[in-house]
Amino acid sequence: MSEENENIQFQLTDELIERVELFIEEENDKELHKLLDEFHYADIAEILDELNLEQAVYVIKLLDSERTSDILMELDEDNREKVLKNLSAKEIAEEVEELDTDDAADIISELPEDRQQAVIAQIEDEEHKAEITELLAYDEDTAGGLMAKELVKVYETWTVAGCMRRIRGQAEEVTRVHSIYVVNKEEKLIGRLSLKDLIVAKSEQKISDLVKVNVDYVNVHDDVEEVAKVMAKYDLEAIPVVDRNQILLGRITIDDIVDVLREEADKDYQMAAGITGDVEADDSILELTRARLPWLFLGLVGGIGAFLIMEGFEGLFTGKAVILFFFTPLIAAMAGNVGVQSSAIIVQGLANDDVRGSVNSRLIKEMLLAALNGIILAIFLFLFIWAFEGELNTALAISVSLVAVIIVAGLIGTFVPLFLNKRGIDPAIATGPFITTSNDILGILLYFWIAKMILGI
Amino acid sequence: MSEENENIQFQLTDELIERVELFIEEENDKELHKLLDEFHYADIAEILDELNLEQAVYVIKLLDSERTSDILMELDEDNREKVLKNLSAKEIAEEVEELDTDDAADIISELPEDRQQAVIAQIEDEEHKAEITELLAYDEDTAGGLMAKELVKVYETWTVAGCMRRIRGQAEEVTRVHSIYVVNKEEKLIGRLSLKDLIVAKSEQKISDLVKVNVDYVNVHDDVEEVAKVMAKYDLEAIPVVDRNQILLGRITIDDIVDVLREEADKDYQMAAGITGDVEADDSILELTRARLPWLFLGLVGGIGAFLIMEGFEGLFTGKAVILFFFTPLIAAMAGNVGVQSSAIIVQGLANDDVRGSVNSRLIKEMLLAALNGIILAIFLFLFIWAFEGELNTALAISVSLVAVIIVAGLIGTFVPLFLNKRGIDPAIATGPFITTSNDILGILLYFWIAKMILGI
Repeated sequence: MSEENENIQFQLTDELIERVELFIEEENDKELHKLLDEFHYADIAEILDELNLEQAVYVIKLLDSERTSDILMELDEDNREKVLKNLSAKEIAEEVEELDTDDAADIISELPEDRQQAVIAQIEDEEHKAEITELLAYDEDTAGGLMAKELVKVYETWTVAGCMRRIRGQAEEVTRVHSIYVVNKEEKLIGRLSLKDLIVAKSEQKISDLVKVNVDYVNVHDDVEEVAKVMAKYDLEAIPVVDRNQILLGRITIDDIVDVLREEADKDYQMAAGITGDVEADDSILELTRARLPWLFLGLVGGIGAFLIMEGFEGLFTGKAVILFFFTPLIAAMAGNVGVQSSAIIVQGLANDDVRGSVNSRLIKEMLLAALNGIILAIFLFLFIWAFEGELNTALAISVSLVAVIIVAGLIGTFVPLFLNKRGIDPAIATGPFITTSNDILGILLYFWIAKMILGI
Repeated sequence: MSEENENIQFQLTDELIERVELFIEEENDKELHKLLDEFHYADIAEILDELNLEQAVYVIKLLDSERTSDILMELDEDNREKVLKNLSAKEIAEEVEELDTDDAADIISELPEDRQQAVIAQIEDEEHKAEITELLAYDEDTAGGLMAKELVKVYETWTVAGCMRRIRGQAEEVTRVHSIYVVNKEEKLIGRLSLKDLIVAKSEQKISDLVKVNVDYVNVHDDVEEVAKVMAKYDLEAIPVVDRNQILLGRITIDDIVDVLREEADKDYQMAAGITGDVEADDSILELTRARLPWLFLGLVGGIGAFLIMEGFEGLFTGKAVILFFFTPLIAAMAGNVGVQSSAIIVQGLANDDVRGSVNSRLIKEMLLAALNGIILAIFLFLFIWAFEGELNTALAISVSLVAVIIVAGLIGTFVPLFLNKRGIDPAIATGPFITTSNDILGILLYFWIAKMILGI
């Protein structure tokens, strides 16, 4: 029973890494085999991600390609790229032979152009080679780029018994049989069956009597995000992919969609934090700088804008109005926060497809919401300034401006992502420093302008 | 073939809603049936989410409980709650009878305490009732709260042929057969089989010869996020749930995990934007205020803090140093942005389990990164101020302060989530207004302090 515990209880400890490193240094292949053979390939990938390149390549060359192909798929993309650089075209082709077509195509597509051809030329299985070449032709952001050619297909004219016999061969090649796709003699998808249906059915029944014709499918050129939405909405675990003539080309499984959803969520999250380009904490300082600096630069330009505005109001620097300048960080912060809140909820709603109703009704709702929040906050701020400074007029001017700034920030935060979305631009870019920065500047401008009017200076 | 297009091509149009509303008003049940019977239950749920309560209840009462039970599961939680309020305990029990145990338990757990018992009492199937009652006892954030009792189970002593015969009955009750779990006579989980293995095997083989003993499983009290990580890491589509004596209790399927991952991502995204409590764009203004106002209030308090600091430096308000005050929004924005960038990448790394190495090495890396970014930005700012104001000293003072502020902001952004995580607090709260606000204040304080030193005033 102890064996069963391994996967769940796998812990990547320093001791474990040190043991692996020691065995590699000693070239103690026997002990290394004994140690690593216990682990799941996903765990070995975690270990390799901690080793240096030379050590990782050593382990990859030591183990069977049946295992290393799976390990390679689980490695960090950066590390995989480096490891592959250290393998010959022949060695990569051996790994690729062991992989399903979708994973095989993914690995090959990560290689430089010239190596791609060299690796493909080395693949021995002609059918596998042809299928991978077909998959490489699709854009990676489409259903074609995500699908695998491995699937179980039966013809509508078969019987259950004949079907069971015939699919045995196909099923051996397919890691997981989610659905059995039923095609007519032109290879057009006409429905599906589950293995369960087949097992529960009587052996003399015809497939055409059992087939569920109401099958979901996607077109090979559909966007992966669209595919993910369909699969999540209808709780599908696999979906067949067809061309525009309804010819069955492949299938996409839910585990690939889980990855798409996670990457999507990670990307949006980073975008909201002002980070672009799918970086990780472990990436190099240069990569992280490239991902972060442009947004910081935007913030800097925004700050300079705020400076220019304040300098324009320098004339206010007389008497009690000086206090206005001390509240600019507060105004900028509130404008930024409200803008991010409003845009985040719209961006999320758009991603989950539950933003309905007209733009106007959204804006009216956000205006009411921002006004409510703004007034509550302004009352608090008014009481503070009045108590602290004893200046009724100044307190009033700052508080009223705050309400106006919050309402405008909320409206911009609502409008911008809706506008971008309508224009076909990813609205997620609106949640980050973009909205904060523009709201900062506009907020400060509005603030001085309104306060000046109220104070009559 | 046209039928197959429906699900993918379903469009929620105003015309469609109006037609449904018209049929309801006319009580034209025949046409309503004809229209709705074409749609997938997930699509009908989308339609119902657009209707008013009375209309939605009308449709629910019209359709078969076999369909409405699935529709109910797909409704917005708020709408489901309202619809259920309008159904009798008997009617809810009928819906529940049609659902798998996990969904049934979810629906019942959403009801008020007193109704829960009334509904359970009305469930006719005694086994279903007992299983639901068992599931209701588990915390919803644990594996027990997510699992279903429906699974296909065989004993290790059976043969393939006997197994096929015996599982036919079980499989009929299980919507999707991912894996067949093999138990010993004490009901302890000892391994698994796939339907594919069974089909490929010879009928006289013993199950104990086919069983894969290296099966992943989770404990019934494990946290759902932990379960999601395990399933995503090992690409599992279903995982068995056991108690601490290894007795097989249920199974969790990947579609539930997809929901957990999405909710988790949505929650983190909202947290980063300063929104708590899992709200949607369509929620009421009051609900949205409750989710947003506390964070805005935090920002307000931070702004007041910045005001107090600036007032403390009021003495600087002489001559050329006045310009320092005009750059406070810039300093605050940069401190906030850098803090959010650093914390977001750590929070994400922690969520994906790929933050390794010591806290110190993280901090050193972030310091170098922030210094690099800070110096680049500071050079730009220096040149701008020098060119615009012609004040070398002031330009130097502001630029040097900016570098210091950025480094400190980066360090805080890195340290806080790591610290919270170590304390067992969700580090995601560190990415939102919390880090922005504290960095704003600290940044401004540091800025004035350093600038004052450099300018010698």
